[in-house]
Amino acid sequence: MTPFEHGGDVTAFAKACGCSISEVVDFSSNINFVKPKISIDFNTLDIAPYPNYDTLYEAIASHYEVEVDKLELFNGGSSAIFTLFRWLSLSKPNPQCTIYSPAYLEYKKAAEVFGYEIDIIDRFNNFNTEVKDGSLVVFVNPSTPDGCYYNMDNLLKKWIAKKCTILVDESFLEFTDKPSVSNHIKNYDKLYILKSMTKFYGAAGIRIGTLISNNINIETLRHFEPAWKLSSFDSLYIQEAIKDKTLFPRTHEIVQNNRTKLIKILGQSKYVEKVLPSAANYLLVKLRGITADTLQGKLIPFKILIRNCANFDGLDSSYVRIAIKELQSIEALQKALDA
Amino acid sequence: MTPFEHGGDVTAFAKACGCSISEVVDFSSNINFVKPKISIDFNTLDIAPYPNYDTLYEAIASHYEVEVDKLELFNGGSSAIFTLFRWLSLSKPNPQCTIYSPAYLEYKKAAEVFGYEIDIIDRFNNFNTEVKDGSLVVFVNPSTPDGCYYNMDNLLKKWIAKKCTILVDESFLEFTDKPSVSNHIKNYDKLYILKSMTKFYGAAGIRIGTLISNNINIETLRHFEPAWKLSSFDSLYIQEAIKDKTLFPRTHEIVQNNRTKLIKILGQSKYVEKVLPSAANYLLVKLRGITADTLQGKLIPFKILIRNCANFDGLDSSYVRIAIKELQSIEALQKALDA
Repeated sequence: MTPFEHGGDVTAFAKACGCSISEVVDFSSNINFVKPKISIDFNTLDIAPYPNYDTLYEAIASHYEVEVDKLELFNGGSSAIFTLFRWLSLSKPNPQCTIYSPAYLEYKKAAEVFGYEIDIIDRFNNFNTEVKDGSLVVFVNPSTPDGCYYNMDNLLKKWIAKKCTILVDESFLEFTDKPSVSNHIKNYDKLYILKSMTKFYGAAGIRIGTLISNNINIETLRHFEPAWKLSSFDSLYIQEAIKDKTLFPRTHEIVQNNRTKLIKILGQSKYVEKVLPSAANYLLVKLRGITADTLQGKLIPFKILIRNCANFDGLDSSYVRIAIKELQSIEALQKALDA
Repeated sequence: MTPFEHGGDVTAFAKACGCSISEVVDFSSNINFVKPKISIDFNTLDIAPYPNYDTLYEAIASHYEVEVDKLELFNGGSSAIFTLFRWLSLSKPNPQCTIYSPAYLEYKKAAEVFGYEIDIIDRFNNFNTEVKDGSLVVFVNPSTPDGCYYNMDNLLKKWIAKKCTILVDESFLEFTDKPSVSNHIKNYDKLYILKSMTKFYGAAGIRIGTLISNNINIETLRHFEPAWKLSSFDSLYIQEAIKDKTLFPRTHEIVQNNRTKLIKILGQSKYVEKVLPSAANYLLVKLRGITADTLQGKLIPFKILIRNCANFDGLDSSYVRIAIKELQSIEALQKALDA
């Protein structure tokens, strides 16, 4: 198994291709390719003093329209997930976790690491499976790796009736014009919302993720956190990025156009059986007559990296995820698929 | 109580002074004022991809002359402390922690947060107090806030005989030419060494701290960590900073000269009873006829911030810590003390 088999590790892929990282056409990671307009000079940032995070917290709270005492920042989405899973596992004997799958793989990993009994609900085939009373329910909306947007009202009602702890991952919500479930926080005290800021803001190298819940939960989580953890560089980047109010309309327009283009190209390929509908910046593709790893291998000469979805629950080696990228990359993919 | 009472928060201090952060003469934080030579342009860093930390780990391992499987990186020293205290508290009922004090305050905070019974050993008056069997012993060397360097051989023997878990914080060791205790890792399986990289490398805004232990301990700790947590900016900064082999001689020479100068000036002040010997980049000062907060207040018009040490165990409001800084700042302090 190559280190890039499931995508994401563009460094290892570049090494395998014998090219530089910048030459790789990376369709495997679902980072927004439309970038915020950042006009600051990072070289002039004074990184000597201990960071003060007040303005960062205020900016993010205002951005997500919640009070500042209802959010805690972590070193990216995966840090937030690990911290929350750890904490919730400590407060309950025999913790149980229900993951609507396929889903971002860090959830299953965190559940395993912190000793949860894991239930997988197959979103594609058994969506209405009952969740267990008091389970920690994980739901990604829009989902990964397919990008389906779900109306949450009935789901929340169902989970609340079962007294579940609920984690809704809205890391890709900003690619849509749909509402957050954050307004439910005041009504239910076991609801958490994750906003990994690395996706929409185009920067997986920036490690800032936001967890939103009621102020009591946030205060408790914060109690176990060190005084300093976020990089001054990252803090500055995110504050500048969310100031750019053009990022939403720019992203929405470009992603929509390029999604249409990518769907068309994929539809014309002999390797594609179907493309699942997506509200996000990636497409889940069911292959025909070729496995994901064979297709990955075919794309290596073109320095194109796609996501093999074989390790997602509910999927197999006939699925790949392809990010929506700039037209030039899409055209490169078309050439490679036609070759 | 002002937010800057105990120093460190230069943002709050600048606000209280009605000046910009860059105008503050900050003697309160013990960050190296001699900076590594960094010749890279941070604006050109590609922060889009998920970070790959291989080269960072290799560079830091090589820098500290340990194998790469014997260290784990955290988001700064305080993240490392919180993670280690949390983990050690879970593996033992009624965990007990012995802190040689005064010491960096995050230790006591972490011990409280994770439910340790805390023993304080007064380094100044009862250094030879026996530690409890199996205790988690915390020792900072050179110490904070005084900068005393201790020969560790007999201390280690004593603690090992009591089967203690040992954490030696060497965050200021690079200001000296003394050896690390890292060579003891192969002989004792409950030894951890912390290197907060923010001090010597002059950047508290960079959140990278190193924990060194044997490979089994490190593997276990790593198991509970998320896949990505460190900023790509921070990773690049530290890799560049440790490449600068002139930083050691430059720092040692300048800090030694300026330490001599600062000791002389403090010795001439009517407010100073004594200055404790220090091997690090800060001095602990016992005041005469004035309290730390009164002196802090006197320095506000000069935009000078010093560290009030009243909240350190074993110290009181007659102690302040003053960092060793550039000559211009030392002269500004001299003027303010003489005024």
